[in-house]
Amino acid sequence: MKFIRNIIKPQDKEDEEFYVALKKLLGFRPKNINYYKTAFIHRSIKVLDENGNPINYERMEFLGDAMLGSVIAAFLFKTVPDGNEGYLTQMRSKIVSRNQLNTLGKELDLIRFVKSTISKNRMGQNIYGNIFEALIGAIYLDRGYRYCEKFIDKRVINAFVDIPSLENKITSYKGLIIEWCQKTKKNLEFQTYEDSGNENIRHYSVKLVIDGKVISKGRSTSKKKAEEIASKRIYFVYQDEIKNML
Amino acid sequence: MKFIRNIIKPQDKEDEEFYVALKKLLGFRPKNINYYKTAFIHRSIKVLDENGNPINYERMEFLGDAMLGSVIAAFLFKTVPDGNEGYLTQMRSKIVSRNQLNTLGKELDLIRFVKSTISKNRMGQNIYGNIFEALIGAIYLDRGYRYCEKFIDKRVINAFVDIPSLENKITSYKGLIIEWCQKTKKNLEFQTYEDSGNENIRHYSVKLVIDGKVISKGRSTSKKKAEEIASKRIYFVYQDEIKNML
Repeated sequence: MKFIRNIIKPQDKEDEEFYVALKKLLGFRPKNINYYKTAFIHRSIKVLDENGNPINYERMEFLGDAMLGSVIAAFLFKTVPDGNEGYLTQMRSKIVSRNQLNTLGKELDLIRFVKSTISKNRMGQNIYGNIFEALIGAIYLDRGYRYCEKFIDKRVINAFVDIPSLENKITSYKGLIIEWCQKTKKNLEFQTYEDSGNENIRHYSVKLVIDGKVISKGRSTSKKKAEEIASKRIYFVYQDEIKNML
Repeated sequence: MKFIRNIIKPQDKEDEEFYVALKKLLGFRPKNINYYKTAFIHRSIKVLDENGNPINYERMEFLGDAMLGSVIAAFLFKTVPDGNEGYLTQMRSKIVSRNQLNTLGKELDLIRFVKSTISKNRMGQNIYGNIFEALIGAIYLDRGYRYCEKFIDKRVINAFVDIPSLENKITSYKGLIIEWCQKTKKNLEFQTYEDSGNENIRHYSVKLVIDGKVISKGRSTSKKKAEEIASKRIYFVYQDEIKNML
């Protein structure tokens, strides 16, 4: 087993790059960069602290999950004054679902920071959501609850949480985007193509082009799913406009 | 349905008494007493706010549950550096179990504040834990996360959380108290008597007397359980001394 110091204090250049990327991601200056390093250490890297305890993101994931739970609870409590506790519980489950957290982790490309001795494909789908939660745990340890709230507000609530869509009032994001483009006289095009790469299962990618510009992308195992993903991403960018139209 | 104003602004004298009792319970001055009032309104009192939403403790319970979850998560993370995420999850479940929260609610005699149109016996056992969580929700709304932390630290963590006992390393609190009294040459007496009151099921009460003074009490459906409850309470008062002895 390597000793943690090797991981925690690598070349200054690597630290510097990590710090810069982290600051951009977080939107504030990290105080103690070591917390964030731990948040991205996969258990396959068998490092121990000076007391012999393993260092990896798993304990931080537990912490971040709890912080996420309470921040989202407070958000829902304040935002939906007519929702009873059953509704609030259900909405929270949807917001912090594995699926949603994995999407968030992917959007932020957190995997680029992960230190692991196994390949990223072998870490499973949930790695994205897990390290997203670990990152929240690191923020809590580094800067406290207020910064957790701010980060979650920016990266989860503003970016992804949309009560009507969580209530399943939106059945097709693609349909919605088409409607919005028609009403606002925008030229919309879905450029869909096969994009299986090295994978065994067939995959499709789609570029969603509005007025000649690529606005979002999606990739999945079916054309329909890929288009829905790309449309949903657009939806979150323009939700205020789109909701006004509805 | 009555309108909320009747509940929120009763006689000044009642408000005054509630404020004083609350301040003692919380250990700090409440800023907005209305949050705490809501935390003790049972749904049988059908009151609505100005937007027609029902006012009772249930939404606050949801909020308090989330705050409790994250405060306990952070406490465990910091206190048990060698516990993995499975251990931390399990310990948290034990600390915030229904049973434990009901005990806490009872210890603090929160039921005295509850406004309800049905009798307290008909509200079920979980009313104690539910209003305890609602109280935490009210603290969050009134004074923010830091005060939640302080309150939970004082009322939950310091009063009840003991890692060895949660790990089931202690099988009998009575045995432990007997051992402690023998080693420290204290005179210990269990005064156990039937105490069924108006209840249909037989109940027992016990007074735990050390050196002639009643130190704690317990009440349950068996002598053994009542003695264990009284012993556990003593344990939490003297845990530092007792752990030194072990």
